[in-house]
Amino acid sequence: MKKQVILLPGDGVGPEIMAGAKAVLDAVAMEFNHEFTYHEHAIGGDAIDRFDTPLPEDTIKACQTADAVLLGAVGGPKWSGRPASGSPESGLLGIRKALGLFANLRPVQSFTPLMHASPLKTELVAGCDIMIVRELTSGLYFGRPSGRSADGSEVVDTLHYTREEIERIVVRGFEAARKRKGRLTSVDKANVLESSRMWREIVEEKARDYPDVTVEHQLVDAAAMKLITNPRHFDVIVTENMFGDILSDEASVLTGSIGMLPSASLRADGLGLYEPVHGSAPDIAGEGIANPLGMILSAAMMLKYSFGMEEEAEAVEKAVIDCLEAGNHTHDLDVKNGNVFGTDMMVRKVVENLSSRSITDAICSS
Amino acid sequence: MKKQVILLPGDGVGPEIMAGAKAVLDAVAMEFNHEFTYHEHAIGGDAIDRFDTPLPEDTIKACQTADAVLLGAVGGPKWSGRPASGSPESGLLGIRKALGLFANLRPVQSFTPLMHASPLKTELVAGCDIMIVRELTSGLYFGRPSGRSADGSEVVDTLHYTREEIERIVVRGFEAARKRKGRLTSVDKANVLESSRMWREIVEEKARDYPDVTVEHQLVDAAAMKLITNPRHFDVIVTENMFGDILSDEASVLTGSIGMLPSASLRADGLGLYEPVHGSAPDIAGEGIANPLGMILSAAMMLKYSFGMEEEAEAVEKAVIDCLEAGNHTHDLDVKNGNVFGTDMMVRKVVENLSSRSITDAICSS
Ligand SMILES: CC(C)[C@H](C(=O)O)[C@@H](O)C(=O)O
Ligand SMILES: CC(C)[C@H](C(=O)O)[C@@H](O)C(=O)O
Repeated sequence: MKKQVILLPGDGVGPEIMAGAKAVLDAVAMEFNHEFTYHEHAIGGDAIDRFDTPLPEDTIKACQTADAVLLGAVGGPKWSGRPASGSPESGLLGIRKALGLFANLRPVQSFTPLMHASPLKTELVAGCDIMIVRELTSGLYFGRPSGRSADGSEVVDTLHYTREEIERIVVRGFEAARKRKGRLTSVDKANVLESSRMWREIVEEKARDYPDVTVEHQLVDAAAMKLITNPRHFDVIVTENMFGDILSDEASVLTGSIGMLPSASLRADGLGLYEPVHGSAPDIAGEGIANPLGMILSAAMMLKYSFGMEEEAEAVEKAVIDCLEAGNHTHDLDVKNGNVFGTDMMVRKVVENLSSRSITDAICSS
Repeated sequence: MKKQVILLPGDGVGPEIMAGAKAVLDAVAMEFNHEFTYHEHAIGGDAIDRFDTPLPEDTIKACQTADAVLLGAVGGPKWSGRPASGSPESGLLGIRKALGLFANLRPVQSFTPLMHASPLKTELVAGCDIMIVRELTSGLYFGRPSGRSADGSEVVDTLHYTREEIERIVVRGFEAARKRKGRLTSVDKANVLESSRMWREIVEEKARDYPDVTVEHQLVDAAAMKLITNPRHFDVIVTENMFGDILSDEASVLTGSIGMLPSASLRADGLGLYEPVHGSAPDIAGEGIANPLGMILSAAMMLKYSFGMEEEAEAVEKAVIDCLEAGNHTHDLDVKNGNVFGTDMMVRKVVENLSSRSITDAICSS
């Protein structure tokens, strides 16, 4: 297959880890006989520096005609003085909204070689495998009005949803649960919020179409507790934008390896933006030591969700896990008796697990 | 001193644990020469059953003229079919709002005898001592509009704050930090919400009045992570209503002993409502096995925050900790080589630590 991928390296370690994802995709293309073409565009602080806006029109246009988008990371202290509306992060919010990427998938999985690095006791976290499905283009993030009164004495943000926005994300949750262990936890605050009551009703309505999925409702405060006391309780969690932001970041630290976690932001037709969960890590940018695995696993999600290449995606995932099990890792991970590598060498290890020696040498310079 | 306390036992285990708190207060009154008078009123499901409303006018009036209010718990499956506006929980929201209890204090503390019951690794959680200061009467919980469009195609909730509402809770946060370790973490989502940007500005303004307090800003998603990866990082956390709801419940499970945790909801003049963090536990109601310590420690907070009785509050806290250290506990706690007691016996153990044998016998029937 031929696929066009937009690369948005962004800020901090973004460019370094993006190079790693590209190398792995090159290996996949050779092994599985695909043709991936890449076009790089600016976003975030990098775009501010070069084009004076965190999200150039050009970038949006390119993404709109592509098959998928890979994003490294945005943000850093260099741009922290800017008003929120012109911040690097607003570029990220903007591209999600412009492309209509309403479904954010955030898998959280415990990797056996990393388990001892979890803040939780091993017996709680072993075997943890959660998929958080977060609504990404509505709710408190985008509702209007949002701003202050003229005299500055009051301020308001608006949590707004249309029925259709809730329906489509809830359906995503059910679909994900059906393909996994068949359990869906819908998280809301129905004892307080009207939007949550509508959310809960819609979940009940849609449940009729998914008799094979077991549904439960949890209040967001209860879910925030249960993620810690019993993370294995969860299979798929579906929730609105702000709750999803908080819960997915909470969940991301449970397994002791945030540098490993990928994410996908999708719209209905398959277009998706894929980015690691970790940030731009400006403190280590340019040092060649960043962990590329979260970015590489994001590329694997792209293969699966945007290109329908399940086998290829699994090959990448397996190549990554085999790496860890062989004790190979970057400085941020804590693998017992392991070998600490830099970014490029880590990428090479993954590529080696996917390809022959000669292909690896052709793809990886180091 | 003479003090008038309103007791709102509420639902489930509420009445049982309330009796325990009252016994402990009786012991304090005798030891320290105070006179506490009590009046019991209805709230929650109990009030629905008896008066067809979760918050009778009578209850509000009684609380308004009292020196403090103790609340057991509200809610249970019996009333779960009711619309949110008539639910037991709406009684709780209503009394907070009616009394103007804008400052919710939620201490989270790790108790050495219970530490091994924490879901976190001991080395992370040992010595954890956090005070969460949550805004309680505004924000998304009470903002208008809140409801659906006429055709049901849209729904909205409103996150509304006045400058004054933010100022008074932020000041509470600084005051709490000043009396503790002098570190304040303000939690917001300033990269997305206008209300958070105003919040952050106000924190910066107020910081000038507290040069002795070190302030940091954290995004709510980052705070949800840090609570797990490094709970000892925090001294005082101040945040708005919804973020506070989520983060304080998240924090409540870190130390492995939610049955121990108290809370206070205060207004400026000292009137306060005190309740344990745990719920009404309908599954064990009436069995005489509920843990009364969260309720008793809530009464200790009342002594301190509403009555200014620091010494008395410390005596109660010490009596509780001494109990645990002697291995005495209820079924919900996990104390190594401890003795499991029912509610009344547990209360007796606490009272014994406060009083002579004859006083204990006079107060405790069992
Ligand atoms: C950068 C920020 C605006 C963003 C969000 O809150 O959505 C981030 O936290 C995320 O979860 O991708
Ligand atoms: C019962 C519910 C409305 C309440 C809240 O969300 O404030 C509870 O969770 C709490 O934190 O006291």
